[in-house]
Amino acid sequence: MPRYAMLGEIMLRLKSPGYERLLQSPVLESSIAGSEANVAVALSTFGRDTAFITVLPENDLGKNAIVELRKYGVDTSKILVKPGRFGLYFVEMGSSHRPTRVVYDRKDSCMAEALPDEFNWNHILEGRDWFHISGITPAISESAMHISLDAMKVAKRKGLTVSCDLNLRTVLWQYGCDPVEVYRKMMDYVDVLISNENHFAACLGLKERVEESDIYNKPENYRRLADEAFEIWPDVKRIVTTVRRTASANRQSVAAVLNTKDNMWVSSIIEIDNIVDRIGTGDALTAGLLFGLENTGDSKETISFAVAASAIKHSIPGDFLRASIEEIQALVDGAMGRDQR
Amino acid sequence: MPRYAMLGEIMLRLKSPGYERLLQSPVLESSIAGSEANVAVALSTFGRDTAFITVLPENDLGKNAIVELRKYGVDTSKILVKPGRFGLYFVEMGSSHRPTRVVYDRKDSCMAEALPDEFNWNHILEGRDWFHISGITPAISESAMHISLDAMKVAKRKGLTVSCDLNLRTVLWQYGCDPVEVYRKMMDYVDVLISNENHFAACLGLKERVEESDIYNKPENYRRLADEAFEIWPDVKRIVTTVRRTASANRQSVAAVLNTKDNMWVSSIIEIDNIVDRIGTGDALTAGLLFGLENTGDSKETISFAVAASAIKHSIPGDFLRASIEEIQALVDGAMGRDQR
Amino acid sequence: MPRYAMLGEIMLRLKSPGYERLLQSPVLESSIAGSEANVAVALSTFGRDTAFITVLPENDLGKNAIVELRKYGVDTSKILVKPGRFGLYFVEMGSSHRPTRVVYDRKDSCMAEALPDEFNWNHILEGRDWFHISGITPAISESAMHISLDAMKVAKRKGLTVSCDLNLRTVLWQYGCDPVEVYRKMMDYVDVLISNENHFAACLGLKERVEESDIYNKPENYRRLADEAFEIWPDVKRIVTTVRRTASANRQSVAAVLNTKDNMWVSSIIEIDNIVDRIGTGDALTAGLLFGLENTGDSKETISFAVAASAIKHSIPGDFLRASIEEIQALVDGAMGRDQR
Amino acid sequence: MPRYAMLGEIMLRLKSPGYERLLQSPVLESSIAGSEANVAVALSTFGRDTAFITVLPENDLGKNAIVELRKYGVDTSKILVKPGRFGLYFVEMGSSHRPTRVVYDRKDSCMAEALPDEFNWNHILEGRDWFHISGITPAISESAMHISLDAMKVAKRKGLTVSCDLNLRTVLWQYGCDPVEVYRKMMDYVDVLISNENHFAACLGLKERVEESDIYNKPENYRRLADEAFEIWPDVKRIVTTVRRTASANRQSVAAVLNTKDNMWVSSIIEIDNIVDRIGTGDALTAGLLFGLENTGDSKETISFAVAASAIKHSIPGDFLRASIEEIQALVDGAMGRDQR
Amino acid sequence: MPRYAMLGEIMLRLKSPGYERLLQSPVLESSIAGSEANVAVALSTFGRDTAFITVLPENDLGKNAIVELRKYGVDTSKILVKPGRFGLYFVEMGSSHRPTRVVYDRKDSCMAEALPDEFNWNHILEGRDWFHISGITPAISESAMHISLDAMKVAKRKGLTVSCDLNLRTVLWQYGCDPVEVYRKMMDYVDVLISNENHFAACLGLKERVEESDIYNKPENYRRLADEAFEIWPDVKRIVTTVRRTASANRQSVAAVLNTKDNMWVSSIIEIDNIVDRIGTGDALTAGLLFGLENTGDSKETISFAVAASAIKHSIPGDFLRASIEEIQALVDGAMGRDQR
Amino acid sequence: MPRYAMLGEIMLRLKSPGYERLLQSPVLESSIAGSEANVAVALSTFGRDTAFITVLPENDLGKNAIVELRKYGVDTSKILVKPGRFGLYFVEMGSSHRPTRVVYDRKDSCMAEALPDEFNWNHILEGRDWFHISGITPAISESAMHISLDAMKVAKRKGLTVSCDLNLRTVLWQYGCDPVEVYRKMMDYVDVLISNENHFAACLGLKERVEESDIYNKPENYRRLADEAFEIWPDVKRIVTTVRRTASANRQSVAAVLNTKDNMWVSSIIEIDNIVDRIGTGDALTAGLLFGLENTGDSKETISFAVAASAIKHSIPGDFLRASIEEIQALVDGAMGRDQR
Repeated sequence: MPRYAMLGEIMLRLKSPGYERLLQSPVLESSIAGSEANVAVALSTFGRDTAFITVLPENDLGKNAIVELRKYGVDTSKILVKPGRFGLYFVEMGSSHRPTRVVYDRKDSCMAEALPDEFNWNHILEGRDWFHISGITPAISESAMHISLDAMKVAKRKGLTVSCDLNLRTVLWQYGCDPVEVYRKMMDYVDVLISNENHFAACLGLKERVEESDIYNKPENYRRLADEAFEIWPDVKRIVTTVRRTASANRQSVAAVLNTKDNMWVSSIIEIDNIVDRIGTGDALTAGLLFGLENTGDSKETISFAVAASAIKHSIPGDFLRASIEEIQALVDGAMGRDQR
Repeated sequence: MPRYAMLGEIMLRLKSPGYERLLQSPVLESSIAGSEANVAVALSTFGRDTAFITVLPENDLGKNAIVELRKYGVDTSKILVKPGRFGLYFVEMGSSHRPTRVVYDRKDSCMAEALPDEFNWNHILEGRDWFHISGITPAISESAMHISLDAMKVAKRKGLTVSCDLNLRTVLWQYGCDPVEVYRKMMDYVDVLISNENHFAACLGLKERVEESDIYNKPENYRRLADEAFEIWPDVKRIVTTVRRTASANRQSVAAVLNTKDNMWVSSIIEIDNIVDRIGTGDALTAGLLFGLENTGDSKETISFAVAASAIKHSIPGDFLRASIEEIQALVDGAMGRDQR
Repeated sequence: MPRYAMLGEIMLRLKSPGYERLLQSPVLESSIAGSEANVAVALSTFGRDTAFITVLPENDLGKNAIVELRKYGVDTSKILVKPGRFGLYFVEMGSSHRPTRVVYDRKDSCMAEALPDEFNWNHILEGRDWFHISGITPAISESAMHISLDAMKVAKRKGLTVSCDLNLRTVLWQYGCDPVEVYRKMMDYVDVLISNENHFAACLGLKERVEESDIYNKPENYRRLADEAFEIWPDVKRIVTTVRRTASANRQSVAAVLNTKDNMWVSSIIEIDNIVDRIGTGDALTAGLLFGLENTGDSKETISFAVAASAIKHSIPGDFLRASIEEIQALVDGAMGRDQR
Repeated sequence: MPRYAMLGEIMLRLKSPGYERLLQSPVLESSIAGSEANVAVALSTFGRDTAFITVLPENDLGKNAIVELRKYGVDTSKILVKPGRFGLYFVEMGSSHRPTRVVYDRKDSCMAEALPDEFNWNHILEGRDWFHISGITPAISESAMHISLDAMKVAKRKGLTVSCDLNLRTVLWQYGCDPVEVYRKMMDYVDVLISNENHFAACLGLKERVEESDIYNKPENYRRLADEAFEIWPDVKRIVTTVRRTASANRQSVAAVLNTKDNMWVSSIIEIDNIVDRIGTGDALTAGLLFGLENTGDSKETISFAVAASAIKHSIPGDFLRASIEEIQALVDGAMGRDQR
Repeated sequence: MPRYAMLGEIMLRLKSPGYERLLQSPVLESSIAGSEANVAVALSTFGRDTAFITVLPENDLGKNAIVELRKYGVDTSKILVKPGRFGLYFVEMGSSHRPTRVVYDRKDSCMAEALPDEFNWNHILEGRDWFHISGITPAISESAMHISLDAMKVAKRKGLTVSCDLNLRTVLWQYGCDPVEVYRKMMDYVDVLISNENHFAACLGLKERVEESDIYNKPENYRRLADEAFEIWPDVKRIVTTVRRTASANRQSVAAVLNTKDNMWVSSIIEIDNIVDRIGTGDALTAGLLFGLENTGDSKETISFAVAASAIKHSIPGDFLRASIEEIQALVDGAMGRDQR
Repeated sequence: MPRYAMLGEIMLRLKSPGYERLLQSPVLESSIAGSEANVAVALSTFGRDTAFITVLPENDLGKNAIVELRKYGVDTSKILVKPGRFGLYFVEMGSSHRPTRVVYDRKDSCMAEALPDEFNWNHILEGRDWFHISGITPAISESAMHISLDAMKVAKRKGLTVSCDLNLRTVLWQYGCDPVEVYRKMMDYVDVLISNENHFAACLGLKERVEESDIYNKPENYRRLADEAFEIWPDVKRIVTTVRRTASANRQSVAAVLNTKDNMWVSSIIEIDNIVDRIGTGDALTAGLLFGLENTGDSKETISFAVAASAIKHSIPGDFLRASIEEIQALVDGAMGRDQR
């Protein structure tokens, strides 16, 4: 079993109840959330040894984040604690044509203001086999970008497998660097790349395009995206292309394609007819993928498990995938949501 | 920008939580609601100068109504405050085949018991360009009917544009007059008529009928309704026919047709696959229409904006359209509910 | 109007809010629930004289159960009260592919530990015309199985009509008997049998099978199930086969077939597009059936009323069918969930 | 055991959460409440046969009131159901120097608009031994005043014991009669009078006054109030004077004096240091008194039980005394609130 | 009636429910709060023309603040809206010996980062008669300190009365200036100074000290504080010394002394035996004082009204004084919290 | 720093909201609770290495208990997981004279049905320095009694310090043994005894008695209790006598006496004027004591820290002491609940 390490920011998520607009009624539902932390919690729930690395303020909010991560079994011993503020995001849940909206309040967070030399990556990554990061972490500040690259470089040098979920939050790129330039630098260290069709272009500047609807009848078109990327970054070992077709804020379908240099496996397409919480569904896919690769290697089983993990996450409130391996496997095996008692 | 004035009753809406039957659990969710007030709040949210005219009791409930209207920027300076009671309605949310149900408790409200000579319409409507009323206000009492007609008459005389949303609440017509007779009197003052196919017959006694499904493939049939009305009331300038096809308590489609004497524009049809709150969706359409007429005149843009405003309202709890012009425009422009962050 | 008597266990149902996983947040929604109690409450709501028979602990939980049953008008005078514990079940609501899950905690309940000689069935059933029981009650303990058989035997002997809803909760069968053997013994006393296709095989060991999808185009295939059962138990007078096609945790269709020895009536099929609470929908069907038989006898009206009762229950939180005869009849008559005000 | 009958109005009570001002947040807690209904529920909880008589609307609110009363075992078979509205009251809980405030919305309720000839008192009171009414019922409308007097007259004639809790809600007396005149008429039929010092003057026009603080060191002064009343209405058999000393909205002490013509018994004084809900505490005293008179007759035990019932009510949310005889007796016996497990 | 202007920061207050520790359960209660905004809302509730001046972000949180202020009638037309973040504070309510705790998250707020030249004070204060500021505003950033001094200087020059509530939040003074130095500069422009005994020393470096208990028997000792301040700043016209004696997190007493150069008036002392929310009680005193000075001038009535406003605020959840003039006056007149109905 | 081990049962605590009676409204607040688990969580929060030993069911409730303990840093690696049920208790919060009431539902729990030979104490206690148990664990079943004695015996033999909090829950002693006999056997292994005056007699059969009020003026009388116990069990090293004087369900005072053979230290007495949650306050005292003994040895500081920990617990909802060392120390140092910001 690989021992995982994740680097990223964790935030307090504050959601208005049900489908209410933000601050419509004077109550907010709080939870802890963040792309890499979501992956860490899911893998830890699957029984994997997972360490989450971040910077937290020494106040009640920072302490609470440690306590919550510990609850799910995540190793918090590498987290730095120092003065500063805890990042936040506000969210209101969409319905039908009204989209789910996120309002970030994370600009001056502890993690954004951390300095590269506060991290001794050789020490932090000791005893770890796999390093994971998302495309959000280098976006939050110039310094966080340097920390991300440092971590990836050391991870690669120490022989860890490096995975990266390339997702772009344009609103976060405020410090003056070009995302494409940064992401292309990161690619030098990546073994496993996860991204969707849009982000291949937006994050990496790739030229190939594909229609989302191709996943239904021409999934082989998705191979072109991988081919272009494999050509530029020949050291990359696996490329996972995720596909999400949105019917409305309540319904969408999810699928993914796992590519190695020689092969591709297309997951089944899962139609979700009642989205409870869309946030964190990409992270659930990543966690499912990492778990799948460990268990069933490069295969349709693996990519289908990843997509099923993502599908199940759509039914669970909060960012975290609170589901067992068995529940996800049941969906891979064709379960239809019939009640169990 | 026209300055609007609305006359109507505002009530305390008391809803059981989620899909619970009324008083199933000992909690009620309260908000402020009423057809014309809903239109006023929406226009005011769009940045328009809007005055709401009603009668409120001088107790905590009446004061709260003023405070809530003021919150959205509605001009409350023309509201009369006097002893009496505040109207209420109870509501439980339906699902699938079980309909949403409203239990009114508004019979002896301040507004129902107001007297025509308590209103100096010349003074109240001074400085206003547009007067709006719904078919509910003349239903609540004989005296309210006279007040409604007085207001429309003075508005017309002073050169205001008069719009009327003709909707029938049969249960409210208790004071012995025939709704058709009253509504036909009102029509003498109407410039912009909004109504659905059923109410053309039920409120105005018109003879033309059309199938709701025609909106999909024979929308021109809807013209016949307008033609009949234009013939009887030649001073009417615009007739908006709204179409709502109900699949279940959770799903319906909305569309509308804008008619002038010489032209008709059919909106796109919007399918709503998860209704959060159906109440106030007609008022949202009216607000969108008035705003659209101001901005894009008689056009497909205008009627599509009106229908999009109604569609977005279906996703928002409470009677009020808590949405921005930009959010509605995004739906006109084809947004599909994909999350924004 | 027949006077009904039901025997079964009633429990405290503890549900996590909304779609949350069990204990995800520190709140549980409580209600009272149990298969036969659900039927009793529904019939009592329909204005029928209905007695519920069980054993309850003499603590606050037991007292609360009596109070809640009395609220709906159920006759609680035959309930035994003694030391012991009150059964519980925990439930989390599923969505899309994640199923609704029940965690039982009823093993050592008062009812499970009751002894056959604590019940004087001759006395208890005095003045009653109809006895109903489900397949769950004999599952909870060996002693409960004997009590169930005693009750059915005496009911039959005293001339009551005996109905039985055969449903299997495999997880409950812990005391070492074979369910099929027990259920076949029970069949000797049954006049009206209610069951679904799977349970004909699993509970009674029947050999005929039918595809759920046959209900759409070959409903006559369902007759074969009834034929096989009528052959083995010639004293049975009516067999109701229920059909539930699950699209996801949020959507399913319901239908049923009413068989007498000479005839069969197929209900309309009702598609439910937003399941609020699936638990108790079978009990609602039973209550609708018993009410229907009393009113419209063996007929399509009866089985359609039963299925409509079940359909409406899908829209109501909690186990109980909190709906009026009129609301159910409206669905039989084609109501589509359009709001009422 | 006497069989009781109570006449009065029952309302929906809508309370803002915790100590919030009315409508401060958009939630109201609902319950069922009303002076005589409170007494009925308490006596019924004590196991007494108690019928509540009122007029209810035939809508969901009226039906809910019947269901809630039935839950506590109250006989609802004498309640009239007809078109109309259900009375309401809004309440916010005070703290320290800010008082608890009630906003009534009961003016045109079913009960207020009921007519004297809708009640056949001979029939209604058949089989009853005790009739109870409060001073609120004759206040709500002229017609309700006549109904109250009719009921008392017939009760007296049929030999029932008549008790009356004289409490004045000045704000309700809107129909033009003088309360003192009405209350003095009622006194002709009263056997057991319950009132506080202020109301002896305000309701009956008596002249004797006493300081509330006398209850501590000169309780005999309270006898003067009773003496004056006994002199005017020699048929009255018992007079209970209640004493409430308010330290703040959170703290008060309660005591009472039971007078017969020849004797007086003073209860112990109970200091309440954390008032959870003050409403209904007088009704709890009445219920405790009636129960006490049945069990321990004219005695210190009786009046102490009545005061203990009132004291316990201060700790329970809602109008109803949800407490057992044993819990009240434990306080009479000196219990101090130490936890029980 | 003077027209008021307040300058300060407004924040989102996020409170854990009841007495729960911060984030103990996943719910936070939100409201809008800030020292000068609290004063503005209270004065506006009293019917006074009050403008609040601040800087708000152009996101949902900033828009919500405007909407909430408008609800209470505060003039928001002078508020600057620009990119940035909205300040927050988290709070948990203490009980007995556990104190109420505030965790600020306001460091990089819009208001803290505003620049002095963004404010045209001559224009902003046009038409205003009274300017109010607290000691918190100059603490949040160096730039906010300059803005505060600018505003006071212009206010003074334009002839407005300037009031200042000197309260020290040590934790906020992070930008390197000495609070005493800043506060002494502010004093050059102050007409009405409000402060407590500790802050006279801590904010202004005064030497006189007084025992809080002196307020009971030697209130004249409080004069010495005023005398020392009048001597240093002879242009100050009124000095209000507030006194708060804390018995526990639930109980305290409040009082205050109003000093002019020639006279002093001591308020009555109000003991609060159940604190619902202590935050904003100082701001309520200020609002009561300003209102009192307008109505009853320099007098015991004025300072007693101010203290009563503060006392009532202790009973109301949230920072705002949601109370009417009549309710406060009733406490001045000796009301004891007896319920009103 | 000693490494602690606790043996006991952990349960799901289900509480009605606020001061509501059990099941008054259909919501229960859930948390995890149990005497020794409470001590473990508190010590773990203080940064101590603490293992909790129990038996848990392999269902969602058991898994949740592990997750919750892990959240607070408790070592859960020694917990046995097997089929069975999770114990529960229901609680309603008292006020004034109405006591807090607990309804246990723990009879057939996993822990109660565990067998002595399922525990290898030599292995379980390896590496631990201190073993703690309460008087509740041997009460839950005969088998649990044997497990308790086994654990204490091995702990003693391995040289661990053994502490025992002797508290009697009479209602639990159902298996036929005499508590005094069992507790006297346990005393053979105890180093540190914690108990209150009543339990010295009820659990150990001691003869000395003392008045609770002696703690105020004759605390030396408490020495007699310790002397009697030291005489019978000369190996006991420390005896802590706890004192709780109940004024009402909302107010009480706490104090304690620490006795060694040669010395006694009396804590200060802390008056709690607003009890938020009384449950777990004894466990907080034990945790404070163990922590204090480690830090300040036998001293007034130690016993005062223990009592302060208990006092602070009274202000926190739930069984757990969610408070820091600093917060408790602040109370030892005289903090009065003044707000902190």
